[in-house]
Amino acid sequence: MKLIGIDSSGMTASVAILEDDIVVAQYSVNHKKTHSQTLLPMLDEISRMTELDISTVDAIAISKGPGSFTGLRIGSATAKGLGFALDIPIVEVFTTDALAYNLCGTDKLVCPIMDARREQVYTGLYEFVKNDDIYMMETVLPASALAVEDIVARINEIGREVVFLGDGVPVYRDTVKNIITVPYSWASPNQNRQSAASVAALAAGKFKNGEFVNADAHVPEYLRLSQAERERKEKLAGE
Amino acid sequence: MKLIGIDSSGMTASVAILEDDIVVAQYSVNHKKTHSQTLLPMLDEISRMTELDISTVDAIAISKGPGSFTGLRIGSATAKGLGFALDIPIVEVFTTDALAYNLCGTDKLVCPIMDARREQVYTGLYEFVKNDDIYMMETVLPASALAVEDIVARINEIGREVVFLGDGVPVYRDTVKNIITVPYSWASPNQNRQSAASVAALAAGKFKNGEFVNADAHVPEYLRLSQAERERKEKLAGE
Repeated sequence: MKLIGIDSSGMTASVAILEDDIVVAQYSVNHKKTHSQTLLPMLDEISRMTELDISTVDAIAISKGPGSFTGLRIGSATAKGLGFALDIPIVEVFTTDALAYNLCGTDKLVCPIMDARREQVYTGLYEFVKNDDIYMMETVLPASALAVEDIVARINEIGREVVFLGDGVPVYRDTVKNIITVPYSWASPNQNRQSAASVAALAAGKFKNGEFVNADAHVPEYLRLSQAERERKEKLAGE
Repeated sequence: MKLIGIDSSGMTASVAILEDDIVVAQYSVNHKKTHSQTLLPMLDEISRMTELDISTVDAIAISKGPGSFTGLRIGSATAKGLGFALDIPIVEVFTTDALAYNLCGTDKLVCPIMDARREQVYTGLYEFVKNDDIYMMETVLPASALAVEDIVARINEIGREVVFLGDGVPVYRDTVKNIITVPYSWASPNQNRQSAASVAALAAGKFKNGEFVNADAHVPEYLRLSQAERERKEKLAGE
């Protein structure tokens, strides 16, 4: 089984090739360049470097959202283009699920927080449960757009040690510190951002279970209205 | 603080740029190509992509061994060349330490196993201890060349749940299963191989503590004699 993984949901642009249990290549960049300039050249680079025969790829794994609207559109358009051209399905995973999967196997509750602006974070809650000799991820709270106070209140209620990761950490570190009542930690730098290797590794299980869509059917999951849609709605409501 | 991380200790060739708490770029390839052909082009690629001003790099973080002798020599030569040319120090980390750091924060004992041929693995044992709101890695057994039976016996003695990772897992999975008496698991594909991001993230703490060497002074740590040295010694002993 061979998957291409893509994550462009945030500042990070990330691509990976997974073959069975091995990440054959992964390439991630956290830089100001727009993903429309970087994502395909990065995928081309790792394909050339690993002499990938693109016709052997079984599916495209995409971080479908939530996240930056523009970033998600670029990632989804790339995934749809590849899926359509190669006539292979798309395996969709939530961005927050893939972020949490960076910490696969931890005993702690995992809470990704992505800065969603407008005083919200894209977040979720995850735990890992042992299944024979590997750990499987389970969703405690699915991908959501919430005030950071609300997600921390939920964690306090659950009462378990938690680890936070994602680009919301530098933004909300002090807020979290002030209101959290359970033991907590921040993920280390090698674990704390989107990774297409995590997208692909998490998607592999879904692919085996037949959980995928056609390129036609794939759409990003924004979880919120875009600014333009919101403003239009507000304008119409005000008329 | 800006570090370049390099790991070419095994089949994986991996480079990364770490700036403070952010992995600005990471690029890893698990492919048959020799590292002498891939490592510098990969570093050049991520430097261009992130518009790195190489004169702003503070140190080179290198996975110093154990591992493939040829791989280590290429990595060390690259690190020394960069360190010498830029007049910056080299931060050395054991390959097994950096592998274990992929799982930073886990409650389990971490046991990297790298296939060392001659019925041995390069291995070590690590645990994570909380220090305020981050987890720090501590060495339970430092990087060693051992029979897999010996490292598993040591784990059985300690009696804690353990997670295995590294390219020795596919080779020794069945042996481990047969002799282990504690709960165990295998790291997921997104975590289970060398990562220059982990090398750099682990090296960052050492760099802050002044634990580095000059490019001149850096040498790989093979832990064993090379085949040529071993054969020469055997020949001399037999004379």
